[in-house]
Amino acid sequence: MSAGTPFVPPVADYAFLYREAFGRDIVASASGGALSADDAVEIIAGAGEFAAEVLAPLDQAGDRVGARLEDGVVRLPDGFADAYRALVDAGWVSATAPESAGGDGLPQSVGAGLGEIWNASNAAFALCWMLGAGAIHALDAAASDELRETYLTKLVSGEWTGTMNLTEPEAGTDLGAIRTTATPRDDGSWSISGQKIFITWGDHDVADNIVHLVLARTPDAPEGARGLSLFVAPRTLVNADGTLGDRNRIETVAIEHKLGIHGSPTCVLSYEDATGYLVGELHGGLAGMFVMMNSARVGMGHQAAGISERAYQGAAAYAADRLQGRVLDRPAGATIAEHPDVRRILRSMSSRIFAMRALSVFVGDLFDRAEGDADVLRMAELFVPILKGWASEEALGVTSDGIQVFGGMGFIEETGAAQHYRDARIVPIYEGTTAIQSNDLVGRKVLRDGGVTVSRLFDDIDETVRALQDSEGEVAARTAERLGRAVGAARRATDALQGFADAPRDAYAVSVPYLMLLGILAGGWMHALAVVAVSAHAAAADEDAARLTDADFYGAHHLSRVHALAETVAAGEIV
Amino acid sequence: MSAGTPFVPPVADYAFLYREAFGRDIVASASGGALSADDAVEIIAGAGEFAAEVLAPLDQAGDRVGARLEDGVVRLPDGFADAYRALVDAGWVSATAPESAGGDGLPQSVGAGLGEIWNASNAAFALCWMLGAGAIHALDAAASDELRETYLTKLVSGEWTGTMNLTEPEAGTDLGAIRTTATPRDDGSWSISGQKIFITWGDHDVADNIVHLVLARTPDAPEGARGLSLFVAPRTLVNADGTLGDRNRIETVAIEHKLGIHGSPTCVLSYEDATGYLVGELHGGLAGMFVMMNSARVGMGHQAAGISERAYQGAAAYAADRLQGRVLDRPAGATIAEHPDVRRILRSMSSRIFAMRALSVFVGDLFDRAEGDADVLRMAELFVPILKGWASEEALGVTSDGIQVFGGMGFIEETGAAQHYRDARIVPIYEGTTAIQSNDLVGRKVLRDGGVTVSRLFDDIDETVRALQDSEGEVAARTAERLGRAVGAARRATDALQGFADAPRDAYAVSVPYLMLLGILAGGWMHALAVVAVSAHAAAADEDAARLTDADFYGAHHLSRVHALAETVAAGEIV
Repeated sequence: MSAGTPFVPPVADYAFLYREAFGRDIVASASGGALSADDAVEIIAGAGEFAAEVLAPLDQAGDRVGARLEDGVVRLPDGFADAYRALVDAGWVSATAPESAGGDGLPQSVGAGLGEIWNASNAAFALCWMLGAGAIHALDAAASDELRETYLTKLVSGEWTGTMNLTEPEAGTDLGAIRTTATPRDDGSWSISGQKIFITWGDHDVADNIVHLVLARTPDAPEGARGLSLFVAPRTLVNADGTLGDRNRIETVAIEHKLGIHGSPTCVLSYEDATGYLVGELHGGLAGMFVMMNSARVGMGHQAAGISERAYQGAAAYAADRLQGRVLDRPAGATIAEHPDVRRILRSMSSRIFAMRALSVFVGDLFDRAEGDADVLRMAELFVPILKGWASEEALGVTSDGIQVFGGMGFIEETGAAQHYRDARIVPIYEGTTAIQSNDLVGRKVLRDGGVTVSRLFDDIDETVRALQDSEGEVAARTAERLGRAVGAARRATDALQGFADAPRDAYAVSVPYLMLLGILAGGWMHALAVVAVSAHAAAADEDAARLTDADFYGAHHLSRVHALAETVAAGEIV
Repeated sequence: MSAGTPFVPPVADYAFLYREAFGRDIVASASGGALSADDAVEIIAGAGEFAAEVLAPLDQAGDRVGARLEDGVVRLPDGFADAYRALVDAGWVSATAPESAGGDGLPQSVGAGLGEIWNASNAAFALCWMLGAGAIHALDAAASDELRETYLTKLVSGEWTGTMNLTEPEAGTDLGAIRTTATPRDDGSWSISGQKIFITWGDHDVADNIVHLVLARTPDAPEGARGLSLFVAPRTLVNADGTLGDRNRIETVAIEHKLGIHGSPTCVLSYEDATGYLVGELHGGLAGMFVMMNSARVGMGHQAAGISERAYQGAAAYAADRLQGRVLDRPAGATIAEHPDVRRILRSMSSRIFAMRALSVFVGDLFDRAEGDADVLRMAELFVPILKGWASEEALGVTSDGIQVFGGMGFIEETGAAQHYRDARIVPIYEGTTAIQSNDLVGRKVLRDGGVTVSRLFDDIDETVRALQDSEGEVAARTAERLGRAVGAARRATDALQGFADAPRDAYAVSVPYLMLLGILAGGWMHALAVVAVSAHAAAADEDAARLTDADFYGAHHLSRVHALAETVAAGEIV
């Protein structure tokens, strides 16, 4: 079995983003000087090396062999357990955990880079790490000292892994329909019964225990989502001295046969009088879950960028090697990478990936700066659904492009291009579909504050347009014109949306196009910031030229889509 | 094993298209009155019934079990051989074969409907029929009486199946690189040696013999594609009395492990001194192959529509049944089909499918009318790459939308939504990638005649804009405004493309966006014709209202994309 596409970590892009794309060393700002961008680049390079050596070679095996349920126990392919132990031993689990939870507390802008790298090298494996990170955030926000001591420390060290148990057969998007019950016991614990589905890494053999965070309904709780409470339910019960005791009454009933991410076990878990412990306030489950959810949604931006990057690397390597036909206006022996349309596809991929990557870092930095600044926090929160929704939808196009570069070979599983296409298809679905992201964006983030936050975003983009106008070069001038026109269209689309305030179906019927509009615009903004930074260089390096070409390409091929979407948004619901 | 999504043939749409969408009974025109639209509707209904009962129930088994290579022989899943015999016995193979070849010679507009139906019910199975149809056209155009008698009659009756043997490991898009050799023998036959890959239905157990049409190079032939000749090489040799003799020296070396269409065996065939017979002129292979290729490319439009339709039916049925959450402004108990965004996705699917279906029929009708009318033939040929390229790319979006409607269940293979997404991914690749279609469009169909044919198309669309302006109703008015603006953008994009005549890389770097622009525009035109037809009805039926909503939706959500693409085209190559 081949090891699939090799993985080369995109260190230069992260160096550019941490050091200069945003006009300052964002790592130093976020860490109060404890770390510098140079330190962060070393961290990214180290993670990249680990991912290339340990995680990437398992990616195709995870897909081919996949997770299997054998005698009620989930088994991962050979190598997964060793890789997980190596990840923990190298300190990569605790690296991004908050200091308040005992982790290293790396800035979230650096966490964005790590997230992309784990996902690019092995998206199915990365989910185990991502779910653990979400559980850490949720417990850190709300758990009692006892729960922190027993569970949070083990999650931060990586000894145990974490999950989110939300979905049930009749409760997917609508969490209010959750029927799993939690009944108090005399000893202070709770008895949990019910069935949870789509539980990512819900069972496995790579770590000693699993910390399930479970949404359930207590007796006499209010109807709907406001009656839900959050519980910790370990796969294996923990004795008072911290050692592992009996198995909890949680059974893995089945694992799903999925389109992609076969190396990530998606479990049906049956709780029958299982033991759980309340996290935070009674009926405060949704708030606790939103902490995990926000972390997971931002993480989906990293996953979208990571899977896309891997697809790009595979396609670019194939194109640079493949000879096929005479290339127009190029000497004999030119590879297909020089064919005008293959070049178009590769640029379309790389320019969208840069946009996703830069926006992931930008959003991480917003969260890094949000503590104590309500305006920055609101901006960060505006971007959560945009990053998740837009990047995940774009990943579908990028991984499809990856197949197209391979031609007929792209449809053959052996080349690996198809795996990325299959893996990517879940990203716009889990952690809230694109529709859910767009409802959050339109309802909670745009209409609720009368468009104040989104207008501030447009003002910030206008500022970049002015900086472009003051920059040297044709690309800067073209980008200024395109971005200025795009932000104008975005303002008009926002006005149209606000005009639907009395006819909310009109707003929600175009909320996904509106989300995509803002995502594409934000991607264009990221390229524009790169153009401003590069244009200030005294001498242009090859890397600078590539950044300008990507920005110019994005403007002509992607930012242009904003105008079509603005027309769609203005139409409201078509009845 | 479940039988997957049931299939309901879209008979009403075909009735509308054959009877009135184009302002006349196109079936009566094409057949010189021998058949009417009503006859065609009966044929479509009959085919639909057959497809729903016989082919659709095998679709998911074809995917799950797939074609297998066992001891050098390809085996199809249980039921495939019986289904093929039933198809032949019901006369569906000879139905679309030309009268000159002994078939029923149904108009190509009716063939478009049959093509969609076979593909919607079972795309992997339909390929067997499509490849046979292509081989029939190629032999009918060029074969000697002896070859016609021995092979063509068996293909038309359906007793034997046909294939296209073009691709080799180093010769995919670039057929000029073909290395398979054909050496003359004393008895008039040829000795063929070489390896062919990606041979669809290249081996199987559903019929007694396979008629391979093979491109090969003869001794002292000119270099490149102009040196290729076309041969018939049967899997099993045929005795002088027409009975089957020894196996030909053609070995099935492997079948591919593919992303989709698992029920269609994709073979690696090794020819070692195999026996073949020259078809048509020496070195005239490419011309013969283009006959098959044109037929196959138009057929890919039908496949794109068919797979999309099946994905839509599955998604619409799920949405109409699934309860999840309270629906905005709808009474309790409303299904997710009423959620504004699910409704958006379903309309986005149905409106694009109508556009594909109508354009398939329109192109079929152009070919039906092309004999003896060079202008109509040029218009038909302009549309071949547009239909193939645009419809196949749109099928990716439609089948992706199909998954999204199912939410998390869409990612689980059992629901069948994922199969359509996987199956559709090959359509923009085989029979010439979208880039190849766009090169054909821009180079041979637009730039070569100085834009004359494409300008006639724009004039025809303008005429529909005027008819819309004369029609009653808001949708007609909105559609007139949108279509008029879109055709204006298309004219400007064409001017820009013609401006690149001296810098061909600029033209070929935006040829795919230009193809998509014309496809989306043509789709909008099809909807506009429907609006004109429906607006003339004295009383509007439910079906009429649905057509108007689809047209209005297409205008706001898809035709609007023309403007973004026009901006992209004008940019040329980004360097």
